[in-house]
Amino acid sequence: MPDPAKIEIFDNPNPDRHYLITHTATEFTSLCPVTGQPDFGTLTFRYVADKTCIELRSLKLYLQSFRNEGIYYEAVTNRILTDLVGVCAPRWMEVQSQWTVRGGIHTNVTVRHGDDAVVPARL
Amino acid sequence: MPDPAKIEIFDNPNPDRHYLITHTATEFTSLCPVTGQPDFGTLTFRYVADKTCIELRSLKLYLQSFRNEGIYYEAVTNRILTDLVGVCAPRWMEVQSQWTVRGGIHTNVTVRHGDDAVVPARL
Amino acid sequence: MPDPAKIEIFDNPNPDRHYLITHTATEFTSLCPVTGQPDFGTLTFRYVADKTCIELRSLKLYLQSFRNEGIYYEAVTNRILTDLVGVCAPRWMEVQSQWTVRGGIHTNVTVRHGDDAVVPARL
Amino acid sequence: MPDPAKIEIFDNPNPDRHYLITHTATEFTSLCPVTGQPDFGTLTFRYVADKTCIELRSLKLYLQSFRNEGIYYEAVTNRILTDLVGVCAPRWMEVQSQWTVRGGIHTNVTVRHGDDAVVPARL
Amino acid sequence: MPDPAKIEIFDNPNPDRHYLITHTATEFTSLCPVTGQPDFGTLTFRYVADKTCIELRSLKLYLQSFRNEGIYYEAVTNRILTDLVGVCAPRWMEVQSQWTVRGGIHTNVTVRHGDDAVVPARL
Amino acid sequence: MPDPAKIEIFDNPNPDRHYLITHTATEFTSLCPVTGQPDFGTLTFRYVADKTCIELRSLKLYLQSFRNEGIYYEAVTNRILTDLVGVCAPRWMEVQSQWTVRGGIHTNVTVRHGDDAVVPARL
Amino acid sequence: MPDPAKIEIFDNPNPDRHYLITHTATEFTSLCPVTGQPDFGTLTFRYVADKTCIELRSLKLYLQSFRNEGIYYEAVTNRILTDLVGVCAPRWMEVQSQWTVRGGIHTNVTVRHGDDAVVPARL
Amino acid sequence: MPDPAKIEIFDNPNPDRHYLITHTATEFTSLCPVTGQPDFGTLTFRYVADKTCIELRSLKLYLQSFRNEGIYYEAVTNRILTDLVGVCAPRWMEVQSQWTVRGGIHTNVTVRHGDDAVVPARL
Amino acid sequence: MPDPAKIEIFDNPNPDRHYLITHTATEFTSLCPVTGQPDFGTLTFRYVADKTCIELRSLKLYLQSFRNEGIYYEAVTNRILTDLVGVCAPRWMEVQSQWTVRGGIHTNVTVRHGDDAVVPARL
Amino acid sequence: MPDPAKIEIFDNPNPDRHYLITHTATEFTSLCPVTGQPDFGTLTFRYVADKTCIELRSLKLYLQSFRNEGIYYEAVTNRILTDLVGVCAPRWMEVQSQWTVRGGIHTNVTVRHGDDAVVPARL
Repeated sequence: MPDPAKIEIFDNPNPDRHYLITHTATEFTSLCPVTGQPDFGTLTFRYVADKTCIELRSLKLYLQSFRNEGIYYEAVTNRILTDLVGVCAPRWMEVQSQWTVRGGIHTNVTVRHGDDAVVPARL
Repeated sequence: MPDPAKIEIFDNPNPDRHYLITHTATEFTSLCPVTGQPDFGTLTFRYVADKTCIELRSLKLYLQSFRNEGIYYEAVTNRILTDLVGVCAPRWMEVQSQWTVRGGIHTNVTVRHGDDAVVPARL
Repeated sequence: MPDPAKIEIFDNPNPDRHYLITHTATEFTSLCPVTGQPDFGTLTFRYVADKTCIELRSLKLYLQSFRNEGIYYEAVTNRILTDLVGVCAPRWMEVQSQWTVRGGIHTNVTVRHGDDAVVPARL
Repeated sequence: MPDPAKIEIFDNPNPDRHYLITHTATEFTSLCPVTGQPDFGTLTFRYVADKTCIELRSLKLYLQSFRNEGIYYEAVTNRILTDLVGVCAPRWMEVQSQWTVRGGIHTNVTVRHGDDAVVPARL
Repeated sequence: MPDPAKIEIFDNPNPDRHYLITHTATEFTSLCPVTGQPDFGTLTFRYVADKTCIELRSLKLYLQSFRNEGIYYEAVTNRILTDLVGVCAPRWMEVQSQWTVRGGIHTNVTVRHGDDAVVPARL
Repeated sequence: MPDPAKIEIFDNPNPDRHYLITHTATEFTSLCPVTGQPDFGTLTFRYVADKTCIELRSLKLYLQSFRNEGIYYEAVTNRILTDLVGVCAPRWMEVQSQWTVRGGIHTNVTVRHGDDAVVPARL
Repeated sequence: MPDPAKIEIFDNPNPDRHYLITHTATEFTSLCPVTGQPDFGTLTFRYVADKTCIELRSLKLYLQSFRNEGIYYEAVTNRILTDLVGVCAPRWMEVQSQWTVRGGIHTNVTVRHGDDAVVPARL
Repeated sequence: MPDPAKIEIFDNPNPDRHYLITHTATEFTSLCPVTGQPDFGTLTFRYVADKTCIELRSLKLYLQSFRNEGIYYEAVTNRILTDLVGVCAPRWMEVQSQWTVRGGIHTNVTVRHGDDAVVPARL
Repeated sequence: MPDPAKIEIFDNPNPDRHYLITHTATEFTSLCPVTGQPDFGTLTFRYVADKTCIELRSLKLYLQSFRNEGIYYEAVTNRILTDLVGVCAPRWMEVQSQWTVRGGIHTNVTVRHGDDAVVPARL
Repeated sequence: MPDPAKIEIFDNPNPDRHYLITHTATEFTSLCPVTGQPDFGTLTFRYVADKTCIELRSLKLYLQSFRNEGIYYEAVTNRILTDLVGVCAPRWMEVQSQWTVRGGIHTNVTVRHGDDAVVPARL
């Protein structure tokens, strides 16, 4: 069972700047809660760290722990955001999941937390 | 005849967040109402759910029911938006249709419903 | 000689919505008014219809009627916008022409008519 | 029901040359014979004509007549090759079908008729 | 444990032709036998059927059964070829596996069975 | 009316080598002989010159002279090959025409003249 | 020596509209003022004309006149903008230069003149 | 050890304009401070110069001096921004680092300095 | 100093088949022996194993050991082939190096060892 | 005036192998001998060295010396091959030139020297 307590953090080296960190995990897989068939997706994390940053190896292991979990697209995207916010308390965070095609339909889900004003503007 | 009553819904797992769900259906086909020739398009649905989300398998079947319907590009795009809004009452929804070339001309139609302010900003 | 009177229109199926219709015509050709050499371009039409929409087959024939006309890039783009606005009186319309390379230089021209406020925002 | 007798032909303008004609039809759709769900594919025809060539508009109508037929990937590809060979008796012909993904699996089928020696070599 | 006995077959609709069937499965995953970390790959099957063809849904389920197996790239590619040859006895078959990057290195493995002479030549 | 006599030639600077010259003309247009509608294509010429090479500006003007000619895909490709062979007597020549989509179908025609043995092998 | 006086202009056919003209010149070359080595770049001009437009052939010749000039990336981009503004007095103009890689580093420079408010908004 | 004092500058040729200079360095490499394994990335610098611009050859040498330094993604991106700001005192500067995949995860870091108002708007 | 003795091998799981293994290492770097500047390349290994296969982690470490070696493109490609052949005695092996651009010139080197007849033909 | 005597060579590090070296020079420019207008092309050199290899920096300078030479596409490609063969006496060499579009026509020229049998086969 996925356990956010195992996600490690480290000190933000520049907490006086609002800056954007992006991690794209291309090898996410979980199970469909109805059919039990595997789902495959890419997860993109974008965040403005506050006091701590997410350690990558533990993030990878946390994501792998969904391998045999049955969970819906919308639910897993929200749950991962909630878990990560609980662990590193970012100023702002977005999780986007992009799923492989099923029945001719591609699905993406994009969830956010925090104050948009801290995100560097598109320039 | 396409029947929106057959589109199933399920509870939004996080109604307290405004978040974006995108479905891209690449295998839509209907008929030209004038010539009877088949039309082919990709439909993209983007929405911010309120109380309910759209169930994908029933969405697929609903879209397939246009297979032998004669209907114009502009009309079918508007009709599908109206049908989906009736079924799941989203906070915001957009339907975009992109059609294969006819006579050297590509056509897209983009229709929206609801309050733009609930859509996550481009960051 | 190109005659906008031959462009046909049909009733907008949803005049109560501001929505965007896009037509991309990839096979436009006219002549250079100085050298008589053929020019080739792609024309993109984006508009928010008011009472009427543009019928595609007649649009194609209207565009084909420039085949042996000598006219500058800037002039033909403006003229087509003026013609289409005269025919369907849209709430907003943009015509963009993109021309094949001549002497190592690519040229585009983008012309607009109407009130930007009716155009669906980028979301 | 698809009827190859409706495919029209015309005289090969250069029967003294072995030359290659390719048609790629991107909008093929039929039904899965088991589930009744629609299948979508691209068909590529390559042939060296003998006395006659295939007329394109009638080929399009013949392909459209599979729209509501239930038939397997392997069977439909073989059947179309057999039908076309019967109609235009080419020196050589290949039909390739490329199908959209189902359950994470893409399928192609490639079938040939006639003497490979008449096909222009790859140079 | 993967069991090839569960792969279903059906009669080849045209055993009198040597023709090529290709299946590309983009969602294969197994485990590294040393580290237990998940591996992800795309498997491409190309074969010339003899008396029987492979049924796609059962192929998908067979491939999914490697999800929690620890096995090397080279071994799993050879094993799947041996399993499929045992099930459908093709005239010729090739299995190619393409794996996602590990430590900056991408790996592919390509294994074949049968007589190359039955494969349609590249024309 | 297209007149090959207007195609100019110049001396091959290295007649002692068999080497390949390729010209790709992306802006070819003619008319459909049945409907009168414009056709658009890309023509690729590949040849091994003997005593003379084709001058590019005159080739361009010759191709432009098809602008208002009604002629089939297969016929125009054969005719242009015959015309060019008559003008420059190459050791080998290929003309390939690639046409824009009509009714969801793309068409290519590839015609050759001369001895394949003089063409540099694919290495 | 590059001489902006040789750039020709013509009357803006629609001075009552603010519209955007784009020219992309892919074959610019000058010399590095330090090493004398050639530099290669693509220049993109975007402008809203006032009374006059830039004539393309004279623009091409003006750009070619930098072929043997030694000048820095930043300086040449600013100089060309200043020259063109002097010639056609646009309501707004941008010049962007994109240079080929040197020592593993790609460089772009983007310079503007005039009032951003006249530029058509991104819609 | 990386020494920003070795980065050379030169006078901004147009300090009266706010304009954007972009340098993209595709061959950056440093070491992981934990494992000692090499990291590879692309660094993109965007800045609005004030009195001075960055000289490219010295920038390249400064970046190469990280080749055998152990440093985290977030730390090196912040450090390089701080170093460059110290050297050329720009009106605005952004450093973006894009790293090759590790464990199926791609990482980017984007850091900024200065007043966004001086950056040319997206038009 | 690169030491091939550190490359590990393991038993070929199917020595009775001639099959192709490909490894593509995208993060190779060494130094120019003349200027001391870093070079960056992608190495592609293709081989038909005999009794043993190359272990990937030790291959990665062996390749990293060139990080601070000064060596020419042609020499390093030949040397790595010789080293690997010495370690695993393949039936056939090819090493291709593809280097990033220097002075506007890209360089590739392709070296082979063994009997081409054991390599699976292109089918 | 281009002088092949300035092209430097160095000893082939592995003359006992037939192996392929490829250089792609993307920044070639010369002049049209008729109009004086600049031409731009990419030159690709592929060769199997005998006793000596071509030194890259001197190759770059030799290619730059065509900058202000008026010469036809076919002639310059043949001349460069002849010059390089004279300098390094390769077992086999090919020069391919690919030119930017002029009047809607792209041109390539491919010239070879030596015995094709020494070139590694496509495997």
